[in-house]
Amino acid sequence: MSLPSHVRLVEVGPRDGLQNEAQPISVADKVRLVDALSAAGLGYIEVGSFVSPKWVPQMAGSAEVFAQIQRKPGVIYGALAPNLRGFEDALAAGVKEVAVFAAASEAFSQRNINCSISESLERFAPIMAAAQQHGVSVRGYVSCVLGCPYEGQVAPEQVAAVARELHAMGCYEVSLGDTIGTGTAGATRRMFEVVGKDVPRAKLAGHFHDTYGQAIANVYASLLEGIEVFDSSIAGLGGCPYAKGASGNVATEDVLYLLNGLGIETGIDMDTLIVAGQQICTVLGRPTGSRVAKARSAH
Amino acid sequence: MSLPSHVRLVEVGPRDGLQNEAQPISVADKVRLVDALSAAGLGYIEVGSFVSPKWVPQMAGSAEVFAQIQRKPGVIYGALAPNLRGFEDALAAGVKEVAVFAAASEAFSQRNINCSISESLERFAPIMAAAQQHGVSVRGYVSCVLGCPYEGQVAPEQVAAVARELHAMGCYEVSLGDTIGTGTAGATRRMFEVVGKDVPRAKLAGHFHDTYGQAIANVYASLLEGIEVFDSSIAGLGGCPYAKGASGNVATEDVLYLLNGLGIETGIDMDTLIVAGQQICTVLGRPTGSRVAKARSAH
Repeated sequence: MSLPSHVRLVEVGPRDGLQNEAQPISVADKVRLVDALSAAGLGYIEVGSFVSPKWVPQMAGSAEVFAQIQRKPGVIYGALAPNLRGFEDALAAGVKEVAVFAAASEAFSQRNINCSISESLERFAPIMAAAQQHGVSVRGYVSCVLGCPYEGQVAPEQVAAVARELHAMGCYEVSLGDTIGTGTAGATRRMFEVVGKDVPRAKLAGHFHDTYGQAIANVYASLLEGIEVFDSSIAGLGGCPYAKGASGNVATEDVLYLLNGLGIETGIDMDTLIVAGQQICTVLGRPTGSRVAKARSAH
Repeated sequence: MSLPSHVRLVEVGPRDGLQNEAQPISVADKVRLVDALSAAGLGYIEVGSFVSPKWVPQMAGSAEVFAQIQRKPGVIYGALAPNLRGFEDALAAGVKEVAVFAAASEAFSQRNINCSISESLERFAPIMAAAQQHGVSVRGYVSCVLGCPYEGQVAPEQVAAVARELHAMGCYEVSLGDTIGTGTAGATRRMFEVVGKDVPRAKLAGHFHDTYGQAIANVYASLLEGIEVFDSSIAGLGGCPYAKGASGNVATEDVLYLLNGLGIETGIDMDTLIVAGQQICTVLGRPTGSRVAKARSAH
């Protein structure tokens, strides 16, 4: 068993997390969150999304957030850019790294972004071209990699096909997301084995949801497959909006606890991270989704 | 990577779980819980504890519970017997299997059972003798195997020493418990590697707490070490009483979800199990501690 010596955590709380919280929060609170996360040592923070506020009111003001955060040297501040219009807005806001979003399941792609998987990939082409022209890095997401709410099981080969396309189009990294959290450790390993034949494992990231309590085990399973990058969300922000009480994104604190226990370097300070989580939970008026933060606050 | 094809789950909810819930419940509700658990297919249910109700009021009426449960053929109904008096009471109640409880940490042993580790082991000798005389099987618990609330880190060699003694005294199985839930996957594997040199792995069980969100990953890590028996608690009953909001025993539903995903046989039916958890949570007036049960109820 050989584990990576160093892992990069991609903090998705301010975007993927807040986007899925019921209640929009102010630009000032978003800025405070992003700055608290960079202070904790996170090297990648997904700050917002350049999408119509008509569709995602929680992401309104992303340009203002980018204008007001204190940029810490070496930290990547990313944004989701679902289309060329979004990319141009991101560029205007000074964003240096964007993310695009595809699905491994046809049904999910149709229902979530109203087009087929291949249409979604075609729409990324102008973004990739514009990004290259402006020296912007692009990260790719693939959702539903271990299950789909409409189709059920998703074959690893289907995940590999989408990941390969994104990589071939120029995504420097492809994050594979268990959107509904139904994946378990063995399926996670098989998925990385299959996808790893088409895309180098060093270019893959794991994105796990803790809906069924499996996320930390899936991170560990991924580490055993040589995966060194994981997405996570401070305080577990972003519980599935349609699943009351169910949890969504795995909490950054809980992933960090695992990595610290395994002696894997991340550059992140747990105490500062926990304070960042407490602050945003106070703003949202919700309990933390992190078990580590809960256990710490109980003492 | 070779995983076991079959795993036995030891259901500790009615004893370890309810003992750590604030509120005692009626004999009738305990009986209903135990019968619901056997109906779900659990092969081992720890029903109660034969200890003075002065010390553990939640365990009052264990003899009545044993008298009223519907014994399903093939199911083991166990009880904790902390001393010879307790063993005799268990015997009188028709108990065919008991468990004894030691700690891997001196400080925890002193504070929890008011004696040193070696004194606790000496006290088990007459229980072991009486058990052998009456054809009663004895299971051993070791607590604090991956950390102690008073001593901090606990060396695997110390765990091995206690486990070896229990095994040598005649315990047919030794369950190693991460009482405070601070263990992570790597420490879990090292612990089983070390203890496995002194006690055959087929005689070891894992008992994990999800306080820091690590329990399912630790179960997976244990499976990779060849461990085939795990303790778990329906609905995650038994959140640490002194840690408000923090969770304790890993939920049986969540462990079963992992095992089902890995294709490992258990003989347990998830739907029946979830109903059993819902019923006891209604009695206790508390939300479930199982993420699987939460996710299911959200749909």
